[in-house]
Amino acid sequence: MLHPRIESLDRDDMKALQARKLAALGERLAASPEWCDHFAKVGMHPRDLAAADGLANAPTLEKSDLRARYPFPMLTVDVSRVTRFFATSGTTGLPVLFGFTHKDLHQLLAVQVARQLYCIGVRPGERAYQGYGYGLWIGGPAHDLGLQELGVTCFPVGPGRAELVVQWLRDQAWDAATLSPLFLAHLIRVARERGIDPKKDWVLRNAIIGGQSVSRAFREQLEAEMPAGFRAYNTYGTTESGGPNVGTSCPYSHGRDEMHLINEDTVITEILDPETFKPVGPGEVGEIVVSTLDKEASPVVRWRTRDLVRISGKPYDCECGRRGMPTIGRIIGRSDDMLKVRGVLVFPSQVEDVIAATPGTVKEAWQIYVDTVDGSPTSMTVAIECDAGYDGAPSNLADAVARSLASRLGLKVPIECHPQGTLPRYEAKARRVLVKEQP
Amino acid sequence: MLHPRIESLDRDDMKALQARKLAALGERLAASPEWCDHFAKVGMHPRDLAAADGLANAPTLEKSDLRARYPFPMLTVDVSRVTRFFATSGTTGLPVLFGFTHKDLHQLLAVQVARQLYCIGVRPGERAYQGYGYGLWIGGPAHDLGLQELGVTCFPVGPGRAELVVQWLRDQAWDAATLSPLFLAHLIRVARERGIDPKKDWVLRNAIIGGQSVSRAFREQLEAEMPAGFRAYNTYGTTESGGPNVGTSCPYSHGRDEMHLINEDTVITEILDPETFKPVGPGEVGEIVVSTLDKEASPVVRWRTRDLVRISGKPYDCECGRRGMPTIGRIIGRSDDMLKVRGVLVFPSQVEDVIAATPGTVKEAWQIYVDTVDGSPTSMTVAIECDAGYDGAPSNLADAVARSLASRLGLKVPIECHPQGTLPRYEAKARRVLVKEQP
Repeated sequence: MLHPRIESLDRDDMKALQARKLAALGERLAASPEWCDHFAKVGMHPRDLAAADGLANAPTLEKSDLRARYPFPMLTVDVSRVTRFFATSGTTGLPVLFGFTHKDLHQLLAVQVARQLYCIGVRPGERAYQGYGYGLWIGGPAHDLGLQELGVTCFPVGPGRAELVVQWLRDQAWDAATLSPLFLAHLIRVARERGIDPKKDWVLRNAIIGGQSVSRAFREQLEAEMPAGFRAYNTYGTTESGGPNVGTSCPYSHGRDEMHLINEDTVITEILDPETFKPVGPGEVGEIVVSTLDKEASPVVRWRTRDLVRISGKPYDCECGRRGMPTIGRIIGRSDDMLKVRGVLVFPSQVEDVIAATPGTVKEAWQIYVDTVDGSPTSMTVAIECDAGYDGAPSNLADAVARSLASRLGLKVPIECHPQGTLPRYEAKARRVLVKEQP
Repeated sequence: MLHPRIESLDRDDMKALQARKLAALGERLAASPEWCDHFAKVGMHPRDLAAADGLANAPTLEKSDLRARYPFPMLTVDVSRVTRFFATSGTTGLPVLFGFTHKDLHQLLAVQVARQLYCIGVRPGERAYQGYGYGLWIGGPAHDLGLQELGVTCFPVGPGRAELVVQWLRDQAWDAATLSPLFLAHLIRVARERGIDPKKDWVLRNAIIGGQSVSRAFREQLEAEMPAGFRAYNTYGTTESGGPNVGTSCPYSHGRDEMHLINEDTVITEILDPETFKPVGPGEVGEIVVSTLDKEASPVVRWRTRDLVRISGKPYDCECGRRGMPTIGRIIGRSDDMLKVRGVLVFPSQVEDVIAATPGTVKEAWQIYVDTVDGSPTSMTVAIECDAGYDGAPSNLADAVARSLASRLGLKVPIECHPQGTLPRYEAKARRVLVKEQP
């Protein structure tokens, strides 16, 4: 542990530390008319964060709140005190800006990322390939800061330039890498094409992978093609939480396909039911909601990430010694996409996984039909297509998918099996869930 | 001036400061076997830099010296002490890496760039759009550091995203910009297309433009389309000199289309005849050769930039108060491309300028033919094409080009005028200079 006095706190001591910082945060936000207005919407004042149930009752924050305050939303310092801004990607509109003071960058973010790097096993004096993007996106700059803080030599290549990277991985003997998992897979492919064997020619020992969630099977396949002992550790964070600073696997949680909420002393992560906003329990799925405790310039309180995750069945007291830094699974979907059918949460991505894994289906053609009462789904049906070359009866294919879905979801779902070419195709983003309203 | 005690030194005091630092540099380099070998090639030792003529006799350094020492050439600290590497672009092979220690980045580069920004008029508390690229290229990261050092709020967008940038220039009221001149021209165009008038809707006051050399006419045209008082200041630097840290215009030198060698206390810039390596005098053209005085990790001594520049006719004692920071013109070409004909330096770019400015020529089709003796050009001829639509005699067109060239170069050059479509065309890089060897 880079910071054992913090990282090994038990859950109660961690909660006490968070409570003190929440009270201080409330004091700071009280100076901001914007933040006071925001809390007033639910009849609260920022200073109420000092109460035991203050955070639990505080209003959530989402993109629409920020868009309404363009161009510098909810900033708690004057713009001139901001060292630099980062922004969300802006795929659904203008990017939303988040400010960072000098302290936010160098005393907070740098330390958060250094802790994550140390947690996966990166050590001072090592050489790291930095493969996340730069510019307004926080990924690359945050890892530059973390590597610098930890005393690791950074090769800030960013994404792309794969041919150069595979050669330098060999010639410069890079120990660690920060990059997206798909780009790591691409590097392995390019290396082989150029006659470089990652297993023998590289010494890469650790990768901190993020930006997208990949399955354990995918990671294990990557690891099998890499030098002995290499591990690709999942990481998770968002611009709104202040960077790639929320979750990171340790060597123990990695084996369970889980991550520690590694910076709980500076970023509170609640896992909440996306409808009731009540905390979910161990083993249950909820939405990640983050609050920044120490950030000066663009703090958030209860920012709705829309990312869904399952809390570990045994979230505390990891073998690594991190007692009060709970563990979560990998990100399993977006709450925007989630269905709740007869009390069971269903993600289209789960349905897609099952259909893709069943021989005889047409991979790109499938739908979920939902019956609703007052907008809430009451039942669902899945429609698939039977590949023209499938040599069994369509009903057999439907049974096979139904069995796998039942086992995956714990829910019996009727399957309609149609001839190939009869379900809708989508040129861009597919609309997988179609609603049949009750008349 | 951000550092008046240094920036206002007279030339003699500046040279004394450089001499002290050269002696210290020699001591440091003496610890490196690579550097000792390099100096030994000309019968010298790094400690000879302490002599009055030490630098003038030291060996020059070029890309081939570094490529021969792949992957970490001439590094004077252990790789583990390097915070991050930057690299040359690698257009002619693998990029060459240059290391920066924590001190190189934060106590040297950050201060050098902050000084440049202050010189053009950027002030603490302002908002700056950072439009240079990131990753291994030093442009973006160096300006991030400089803006941070000066206390300017950085919007690190990088190049691209023009539609977003033109809107934010208005809505976020950016005061300053660091970017390439061609991208600034592009932004103005995009703004007009979107109904944004840079003159009225933006408040941008200063731009620090570099990455490519543009004419005074081009800059003045840019400035005319921008808010009143806006200035686009030329800047110059290279990865090898430790960043964008060599030349910057002040408000006075800007008017003369010149730049100060603004960091002469940390980067010595010699302007040398590319053949004799002797210094050229005021008003003369030579190659920029740089030596880093304070850089810890990848110092250079007499790095040949291949960039050619004219020293000001009156290089010292600028009206801005910078007495010993000499002024140079803008970069006028590469020494690789330079011709010396009957004692006159000729750059293909000058010939191109003249042809492009003469009505009736075909812009893309022209050649320079050179007669040589023992590899040295003795005479040159320029071949042009006469546009099929030109309504005068080809000899008139040839005369017009000859007159303009004579006035531009101070050299009488015979012109051959050919019919349209008869000279070579080039799909990629043109070979404008063709040699006729003596038999």
